Parts: sequence; structure tokens; C-alpha cells
Amino acid sequence: MLHFESDYIQGAHPAILENLIKTNLIAQTGYGVDCFCEDARAKIRTACGDETADVYFLVGGTQANATVIDAMLKNYEGVVAAVTGHINGHEAGAVEADGHKVLPLPHHLGKVDANELADLLATFYADDNHDHMIFPGMVYVSHPTEYGTLYSKAELTAISDICRKYNIPLFLDGARLGYALTSNGTDLDLPTLAQLCDVFYIGGTKCGALCGEAVIFPRHGAPKQFFTTVKQHGALLAKGRVLGVQFATLFTDGLYMTICKNANVQAEKVRKDLKEKGYEIFIETVTNQIFIVLENTRLKELSEKVCFGFWEKKDDNHTVMRIATSWATTDEDVEGLLGLL
Amino acid sequence: MLHFESDYIQGAHPAILENLIKTNLIAQTGYGVDCFCEDARAKIRTACGDETADVYFLVGGTQANATVIDAMLKNYEGVVAAVTGHINGHEAGAVEADGHKVLPLPHHLGKVDANELADLLATFYADDNHDHMIFPGMVYVSHPTEYGTLYSKAELTAISDICRKYNIPLFLDGARLGYALTSNGTDLDLPTLAQLCDVFYIGGTKCGALCGEAVIFPRHGAPKQFFTTVKQHGALLAKGRVLGVQFATLFTDGLYMTICKNANVQAEKVRKDLKEKGYEIFIETVTNQIFIVLENTRLKELSEKVCFGFWEKKDDNHTVMRIATSWATTDEDVEGLLGLL
Amino acid sequence: MLHFESDYIQGAHPAILENLIKTNLIAQTGYGVDCFCEDARAKIRTACGDETADVYFLVGGTQANATVIDAMLKNYEGVVAAVTGHINGHEAGAVEADGHKVLPLPHHLGKVDANELADLLATFYADDNHDHMIFPGMVYVSHPTEYGTLYSKAELTAISDICRKYNIPLFLDGARLGYALTSNGTDLDLPTLAQLCDVFYIGGTKCGALCGEAVIFPRHGAPKQFFTTVKQHGALLAKGRVLGVQFATLFTDGLYMTICKNANVQAEKVRKDLKEKGYEIFIETVTNQIFIVLENTRLKELSEKVCFGFWEKKDDNHTVMRIATSWATTDEDVEGLLGLL
Amino acid sequence: MLHFESDYIQGAHPAILENLIKTNLIAQTGYGVDCFCEDARAKIRTACGDETADVYFLVGGTQANATVIDAMLKNYEGVVAAVTGHINGHEAGAVEADGHKVLPLPHHLGKVDANELADLLATFYADDNHDHMIFPGMVYVSHPTEYGTLYSKAELTAISDICRKYNIPLFLDGARLGYALTSNGTDLDLPTLAQLCDVFYIGGTKCGALCGEAVIFPRHGAPKQFFTTVKQHGALLAKGRVLGVQFATLFTDGLYMTICKNANVQAEKVRKDLKEKGYEIFIETVTNQIFIVLENTRLKELSEKVCFGFWEKKDDNHTVMRIATSWATTDEDVEGLLGLL
Repeated sequence: MLHFESDYIQGAHPAILENLIKTNLIAQTGYGVDCFCEDARAKIRTACGDETADVYFLVGGTQANATVIDAMLKNYEGVVAAVTGHINGHEAGAVEADGHKVLPLPHHLGKVDANELADLLATFYADDNHDHMIFPGMVYVSHPTEYGTLYSKAELTAISDICRKYNIPLFLDGARLGYALTSNGTDLDLPTLAQLCDVFYIGGTKCGALCGEAVIFPRHGAPKQFFTTVKQHGALLAKGRVLGVQFATLFTDGLYMTICKNANVQAEKVRKDLKEKGYEIFIETVTNQIFIVLENTRLKELSEKVCFGFWEKKDDNHTVMRIATSWATTDEDVEGLLGLL
Repeated sequence: MLHFESDYIQGAHPAILENLIKTNLIAQTGYGVDCFCEDARAKIRTACGDETADVYFLVGGTQANATVIDAMLKNYEGVVAAVTGHINGHEAGAVEADGHKVLPLPHHLGKVDANELADLLATFYADDNHDHMIFPGMVYVSHPTEYGTLYSKAELTAISDICRKYNIPLFLDGARLGYALTSNGTDLDLPTLAQLCDVFYIGGTKCGALCGEAVIFPRHGAPKQFFTTVKQHGALLAKGRVLGVQFATLFTDGLYMTICKNANVQAEKVRKDLKEKGYEIFIETVTNQIFIVLENTRLKELSEKVCFGFWEKKDDNHTVMRIATSWATTDEDVEGLLGLL
Repeated sequence: MLHFESDYIQGAHPAILENLIKTNLIAQTGYGVDCFCEDARAKIRTACGDETADVYFLVGGTQANATVIDAMLKNYEGVVAAVTGHINGHEAGAVEADGHKVLPLPHHLGKVDANELADLLATFYADDNHDHMIFPGMVYVSHPTEYGTLYSKAELTAISDICRKYNIPLFLDGARLGYALTSNGTDLDLPTLAQLCDVFYIGGTKCGALCGEAVIFPRHGAPKQFFTTVKQHGALLAKGRVLGVQFATLFTDGLYMTICKNANVQAEKVRKDLKEKGYEIFIETVTNQIFIVLENTRLKELSEKVCFGFWEKKDDNHTVMRIATSWATTDEDVEGLLGLL
Repeated sequence: MLHFESDYIQGAHPAILENLIKTNLIAQTGYGVDCFCEDARAKIRTACGDETADVYFLVGGTQANATVIDAMLKNYEGVVAAVTGHINGHEAGAVEADGHKVLPLPHHLGKVDANELADLLATFYADDNHDHMIFPGMVYVSHPTEYGTLYSKAELTAISDICRKYNIPLFLDGARLGYALTSNGTDLDLPTLAQLCDVFYIGGTKCGALCGEAVIFPRHGAPKQFFTTVKQHGALLAKGRVLGVQFATLFTDGLYMTICKNANVQAEKVRKDLKEKGYEIFIETVTNQIFIVLENTRLKELSEKVCFGFWEKKDDNHTVMRIATSWATTDEDVEGLLGLL
């Protein structure tokens, strides 16, 4: 059986496991103040080109989203996001459970459009009754988006400029950030993200770690007592070292980039081949996720030999499926897949 | 340096790490429906003597407490707990952040007294104005308690009987459960807990795992859509396998009991020696935590060679310190400690 | 100055004030268990043709919406509403502040379409990942809608049927219900609403009372301990009598219908005249609100003699204004208005 | 039947009803920006000796408490209150429903002791683990307390000083403030409260109004967008005029003080008589509430002719009952009562 259903179907990159074993018996304080977390923080600050960045390690993406948003919004504020944003549809209402509204914008292949954002903000403040409404208090973007697409530097800069004009923070969900940063032709890197965003996270779970997301507040920007908010959200790992060791490993010798790059290279091979063979691509992506349309009987046949991720029903006879590569995808896996398709 | 400051200062029992490596490349679906979680669930059900138990794996204790309580309480209900209960003081208000009040009872070395619980409930319903008050909707106990003490079977049965009389669930926080179950003279075991409680968890983080708590609802007792509530709380690990592998390991060949027993045996040696030497014991415990009173200059001296956990200031010249053993404590560690004390 | 800006610009119908004075010194218990509330409840039950209805009096609309929704939804559920629904945009995020998501449907002049509702529900349950999403747990409709439009009996029945098929409650926000029930040609009355809805309220604030909304749960349908939930929401008036006296007055000798009918009759006169004069009607309504498009210089001129409600900017030269009649609108008021227009 | 069960068993002072009638048809904008509210605000500012005070009108006490606390606390903060504080036991968990913990202090006849408050704060910040705990972010006192007792100026100043030292706001719940301000021998008045507190409210509901509490933030101290928070809490009355007219009436020619003084004078007569007759006074009070111990058969007898408020069971044969006077208590009422006792 070949596995392309998602990028979190296997454990962790072997270097991470090795380091977990190597450091296993070294006694360290809990809750993220251990030497491994400190090491990881230092490496991430350097990678981001911001020695003043506050860095926290949380366990997962939904948790990171909810905790950051809850910490940064006031009671009367909501978070603006594309209607397709992960927080809006696929996190079981975690943002609302903390008391905050998601204010949806239309999506463009998963992306927020800067002009539409500017309009939303201008319209809000122009409305005589806006004191009766939830204030737009933050902007959330995901990069790559839920559709595997990317913002360009110009696009993200335009969004960032609007946020700064209105003095509201820009939050970038980087659950799959490694696949964005190593995509062909992207002009966004970590230092640029640190300049444009007020908070973002570097995803570990979907990029080679067992679990973990590194939340970064550039320019000492963490909300007051963010540690306590993390604890309150059940997002503070007692053995914080587990996250520290993983991120220290990923940010040593560029491992994070190397393994994410592999996923993109493998995906590019698949994408090229599928196009040549005339498959219908549902959404044009440039990262490790490929969305193709399959005829249902063909899908059934393939499903005996390869696992895809279900995306959505297209019509009565066709289904959109997701092919995801990862740090663990080998040349043999891809050859196997292309041989079947 | 000797380390006795807590039971989560090291990584995981080596058998867990070995199994993480062994299973690392086996592709599995995310979110806890993988084969490792299934294996762990089956083993835990057997250990609990309840094949109908619902078992969920969450990452940490505060998270497990908040998620379970939020899932089981109605809006107008609160959770009764000893004033010293972990949820009442040391979880950054996680229960209240979800909208629920903690209704405190006095503690008796960390324990809830069944008669006082009965009184609280009787008094509540006798009050003409109780419709204006938060209803006691659940009882929370920790075992071992935050003071390292244990309930006897008779004590827990009395509490369980009251809960059933009032038709409110009994929730047992077992963050350190292994140290309770392997303590000398305890008459409580997993099958008995499964009978007396409506929900409880078997702590992994403080009992030899990297992270993880196994939440058990005996008798198919999980609240409707508990999975979704877990997701909403940011408590659903994408790579659920990480928890599955760990608990499957801990519940193979009695490893959980073996390694927790070690902590108790080592603690007993320390306890005996300290008593013989005339040290003042602050709280009489029977598990892996020992609370002793140290004169401050003596403490300062010792602190150069051994790490203790700070518990509380006793007076201007004395401090209460915690000595914690764990699965990783060796004979040499204890000999080293006793040589210093 | 003529006043048509809204239907809550004046105090209460004189009969209400008279009864407040008449009953002022009669001693009664607080919190809605007084004889006036009991009288009002009995009269409302009769008007609804449901002697088993549970009736509660709350102070205002946002409060009633938030309290009812919070009491009826489980943690993992959200409320489906038209994107224009009052709860979605104009209640400062009160529903989300209680932890619940509003799941928006497109609107059709403010109304939910039964087919689109059926689709949303079918699509939700067809999605393999729906356990990661907020469940649609309730349907909210407003009647009249925020656009002054009405559901027909057939339309509301279709929505009700879908709700029952999926076993989720139907909640009707009747902040302006009197204007719906007395509109020309409506085929919905209170007994029908009681049959089709699981909860609805009869608006007092915008229909002649100083304040107050009567929340009705047909067929003994109030959630357990709704009283306590009302208290928790700060929605329990200490002097509940103030609401009891008002609703008892409104439901004596059909006063509620009489005074709301007046608003509709006056609005109809305005509507007819405006159409004859060729004014552009922005939305076709059949209740006490009329939305017209005015050229800006004309609007400025008129604004010196009559108050309208601002609705929205249409283009650079035109504005949509709301004309609202009420129980207090007199023939003279309307003649004055029509003389100006 | 004589009525002494509470101070909210009758409607409003006649002058209020007269003014509601007098102003009934004057058209005014909703939501508290009407001329009556402005008039009331001006009069209250003058009474408080603070022309910079922000003044908001809310409908009831539980609502005012929850809204103010929610607006002023950060997520990681709780509110310190006497264990007997109304917010801690009798508001159905409204504060917790908004996500905030109540941090209880012992009570001294309902009062917070400044030294114990100082200790709580010092101990909190001395605790190494305080980042895992809810921060004390506000202090709540009620005046009169739930036991009818009063703070002296020295006592309240001591509390205020501690709050300022720790930079946390002091909130005074004045649901019955009129009875405090007109009590014999009190040295606290409105200007002093405005100096010592960061927010407090002047209760209307229990002091002669139909409903309403005037929330005052001295020195322009209202939290940003407090209006929106009020709306979100369902605490924004559409016909804000109803509250404006009432408070404007109460603060014209000292009516508020006059009618509350009456309650105190009547209570003093009762208190004196009961003491002379040797009745056991349960709590020594100086305001409009008197708590006496009655033998149960005597109570049953009396209950046929006079209504008391139930306070608590004292023992198997005795009950503590509350006698409350109000603006409406007449000399005849008191003579009647004393004739029976």
C-alpha cells in the first residue's frame, strides 16, 4: 500500500527520535524553561533574523490558533479570516468557544485579498452602528493556505500594511510553513514573515515532528502573561523538553528546510506527471498538496493500492482527492504512485 | 547534581522510545483512530476490567481536566473539589475559562470528605434560593492528591455512593495514578476505579511517558461527541499514534505498574531514612512524593548538590521542600541523597 | 419635528403605564414568580393555544437570543442563521461570547431558505470530517426579518420539518412579532408558531412596552433549569413584576394586536403614497418598516423636519433610509410626513 | 398582611412613575444616548463630585457585576471577593460563565479585610509557581455587604491603597448603596467612593426604581468600548430612556437619599424595639436589613400576618429571618410589625 493521504501519517524524522533518546535522561525543569527549549528558541530567533522575538512551543495547531487568538483579542473583538480559514470551519469552533467571533472574508484559492480586507475595515468604521458589532481586532491568514496556495511577498505586505494602518495584529498560521518556505519561486522567508507579522507559528506536527508548533512574536510582542494563557488553554506541556528537543533538531543545520524541500520536490514530480497525463487538477498548488479529480470507479480501483485524502465530492461521478507528500516520501513512493496513475 | 525536584524532569521510559522508533514509519491515520491507539485502548480496557469503557488519549493533565469537565457539565453546573484540588489553584483558571465554577470543599490532607460532600449537596438543595446558584454537577477528586495522599476503597466508595444518590458524575484525576496503584497497602485498583468513577484518567506524563493521559469513561459513558469537544479544546493530537504507542507500551507486561512501583520503593527508602534521622515530615504520604521541612541555611547548602522542589515557606527560618522519585530514580540516586541528608 | 427613525423612540403604550401605577404598591415576590407574571403567562398560553407552554420574561432581545441559544446548544453545536440574522451581525458577538458559533446561510431578503438549510445539514453529515466541525444544533429565524419581510406558513413549515427531521430546535426571534402577526395577508398566527417552533419570543420593547420579551417554549419545552441560566446571563429582573404587568396588559383584550396593527396601517399608507409618488423602494416590506432611497441633498433638506433611520449608503449620491411606524404613530404624523415627501 | 421580606417587593417611587408618564411621548434615540440619560449622567457626576466620570446605565445587579468584571479583567486574571460576596454565591456563576475565577477571601460580617487582601496579594507574587495560577486582577466589595454591614472610610481607604499599590482596580457593588450612604454614622459619601474606587454602581432596583443600576467609572476610567461589552452582555436597554428618566428623578432634589434614609429610619425603629424586647439579633447591621433569630413555632405563627425573608436555618428549632425596610415602608407598617413582635 502506498500512502499519500496526508503529511502526518508517520512518526518523526529519525534525527528527532535520535535526539530524544540522546537527551532522555538529562534532568531538566518542566514547562518549557529547559535548556533544549532555550536552544531551540535561540536557533529560531536566528533563523527569523530577530533576536528580540518571543518564542513559545505549543503542542498542536488548533491549540496554537485558539490560544494566540484568545490572548490577543479583547472581548469586543473578533478575528478576520478567509471563509476557508482553518479556524473558521475545521477546528470545532475553538475560537468561538473562547468567546470570539470569526469575521469571514471571501477566499481566493484560500487566500485573503488585501483590498477586500481594506473594504471590510473601512465599511465597519463607516457604519454608524458599529458600536453594536464585533470589532475586527486581528487578521488571520494561513500560509500555505488550506488549499495549498501561497501568498507572495507583495500580497502579504499589502495585508500587513492594512493591519498596521488599523493597528490590529496580523497572525499567520504556519502549520505547514516549511512547505511554503521551500516552494519553488516563493519570495517569503522567515525574516520577512517576522517583519510583516505580529505573530506566526512554524509548524512541526505536519513538517517532521511528532508534535509541536513554535509560536513566534517578533519584536518582544508576546501578550502579557502569555505563559499563563497557554497554561489556561491546556497547551503547556509539562515535559516541554519534548518540544524543545524537536525544534532544536529541526533548526540545526537547516534540517527543517531540507526535509520540507523533499516534500515539495516529490510533489512537483507528481504534479508534472499528472499534468502530462491529462489529469484534471482541482486547484493549482505549489506546495506539498495536490488536489486532483478522479472518476469514482477509477478511484475505487486505485484505493486498493494507494491511500489518498478525501477532499470533496465533485459531482455524482467524480471526487476530488488530495495527494500529500511529506519529509518521509521517497523516490520509490512517488515512482510507485506514478506507475499506478 | 542529584535530581529529586519532580517526576517529570526526564524523558520517557526507554521502552517507549524504542517503540516510537520501531513504529515510526508505519503509516497510520491521524487523530487517534490508528492501530496503536486501538491496541492501547484494548489493553487499558482489559486492565480496567471493563470491555465497554470508552478510552481517549489527551496530551496533558490540565487539558484533560478542563476538557472532561467542560464536556460533562451543563451551563448551570459547577464542579465540587477540595480547595487544594489541582483544578482549583494550579491550572490558571482553565475550568472557569470554559465557563464553570469550582465549588470548593475543605481538604483533609488533600482529600474530600464524604460527609462534607453530603452536607454540601444537602444544604444546596435545602436552600430556597438554590435556583440562583450554581448547581453542584460533578465531583472531582485527585488520586494521589496534590499532597501525595490516597483514598481508601471505603472512602472513595462513600463519595461514589453520594454522587450516585444525587446523579452527578465522579471524576478522578489520576495524573500520578501509577504511584497510587502501586503504593503499599492501597486497596484500590483499576477495576475498582472503573466501578466507582464515571470518568478518570491514567496519567502518563508523570508516570514515564513523554506526554499523555488516558481518559476512561467506564460503561460506554463518554459524553456525546466527546471527540469534537476534545478537538475544540485543542486537545486532539494530529499524530495520535504518539500517545497510542506510549500507552500500548505502558500497558504491555505491566510496565506501567513496574516503573511506578520503583518510584514508590525508592520513596519508601528515603522516607524511612529521613524518619530515622529525625527530619520533620510536613505531610505523611505513601506515594512518590515526600514533603520535608528544612532549615534554610541547611537547604542552601544542600541545594548545591541536590535539586528539591519548592513547596512552601514554613516560617522565616524553615522551608517545606518536596522530594519526588520516579520511574527513573535509581538505587544510586537514593544512596547519594541519603548520604547527603 | 416628525419622528420615524425607529419603533422604540417613545415610552410605552399608556395602558401599560396606567397598570404600572395601579399595581405599584401591591407587594409581590421578585424574580418573575409574582401574580402579574402568572397572569401574563396564563394569557400568553391562551393566545398561543398551548396551555403547556413554558413562558419566561426577559428584558431585551439580544439578551433573549443569547440566553435561549446558550441554554439549548451543547458545547459542540452552533446555531444556523441567515447571514443577515440579528445575532450574526448586530449583537456584538453575544452568541460567540457564550462560546457558540453562528453558522451562516445566505439570506433572501433576510429569510432562510428551507432548501438551503436542508443542503447545509445534508452536506455537514456527508462530510467525513464533520467530527472536527461545529455541529448545526439549532436554527434561528427572525420574523419579521431584519429587512421587514415575513415567512409564509408554508415556508416556516418547511423549515420546521427539516429541523424535526434532524432533531434540532427551531428558534424564532420575534422582537417585532406584533408587526408580523398583524400584517396584511400573513397566514401565521401565535398558535401556528407554537406548533412549528421549539422556542420563540413575543417582542415587547419594539411593540409598545418599556422593555421586555416573552420567551415561549411550547409543549413544556424549556431546557432544564432555564431559570438559572437566565440568572447567569444577568437576564433575570429582580422586579419581575415590571415585565409581568406589561405583558398582562398587552395580552388583555387584544391590545398587543391592536397597537401593532396601527403601525402596519400607518406604514401601509406611507408605502402606498411613496409608490404613487414614484419613490424608489429599496426592499419590499409588508410590516412597519419601509426602506426608501433618497437623493442626498433631498435627504439633508428633509432631515430638518423629519427623523429617519439611517440604513446604508447606496451610492455617492443616494442613501437608503428607514421609515418606521409604531403603536404611537398617529394619522397626523403620517399626514405630516406625506406632506413633506 | 405586612411585607418586610425584601426591598424590591413593590414597584417604583411614585415620582419615577410620574416622570415616566410625563416624558412618555417625547421621541428620543435608543441605547442610552437620549436626553434623559444625559441629564441623569450630569446629575450623578455632580453628586459624585467628578465631572470626568463615565456613567452607564444597566438594568440589574448581576448583569452589572458580570459586565464590569468581564470588561476589566484580562483572561488570566480573576476577581478577589469575600467568600460571601454576591458574585461568589448568588449570581448563578455569571462571573465564571464569562471565563473568570472568583478568588475568595474570608469574610468579616460580609467584609473584606485589608490585611488579608494584602496577604493574598503578597503570597501570590511570592509563589514561584504563580504563572500557573489565576492572577488577582481586581477587588470586589459590596457596600452595604450581603450582611447589611458597612465599610468605614478608613477600611475602604486601606483596601483602595492596596489595590493601587498592585495596580488592580477596586470595584464596589452598590446594589443597595442608598442605604449605606444614609446610614447613621457612615463616613463614606459618593465623592469619597469616586476617589477610592475605580468603578462602582449606584443601585436603583433595590432603592426605589423599577430597575436600573448606574455604573460609574471615575476619572474617565471606562474600559475601551465598554458600550460594546454592555451590548454583548445583553445589558444594553433599547429604550435607555427608561433608566435615564428614573435616575434623573432619583438624583433631583436628593430624592435618592431621602427615600433611602426613610428605610434606614424605619429599620432603626425596628432594631431598637427588637433589642429592647430581647430578640436575638443574628448579625449587627446599620442599614435597612435586620437579621433576627426566631423560634420556629413563633415564626410559623407570625408568618400568617407578616412576610419575612428566609435567611438560613440556625438549628433544628430556630431560623434566621431577614426583615427589610425600603423607600415604601411607612410608620404604620412598622407599628404593625412591632405590635406583632
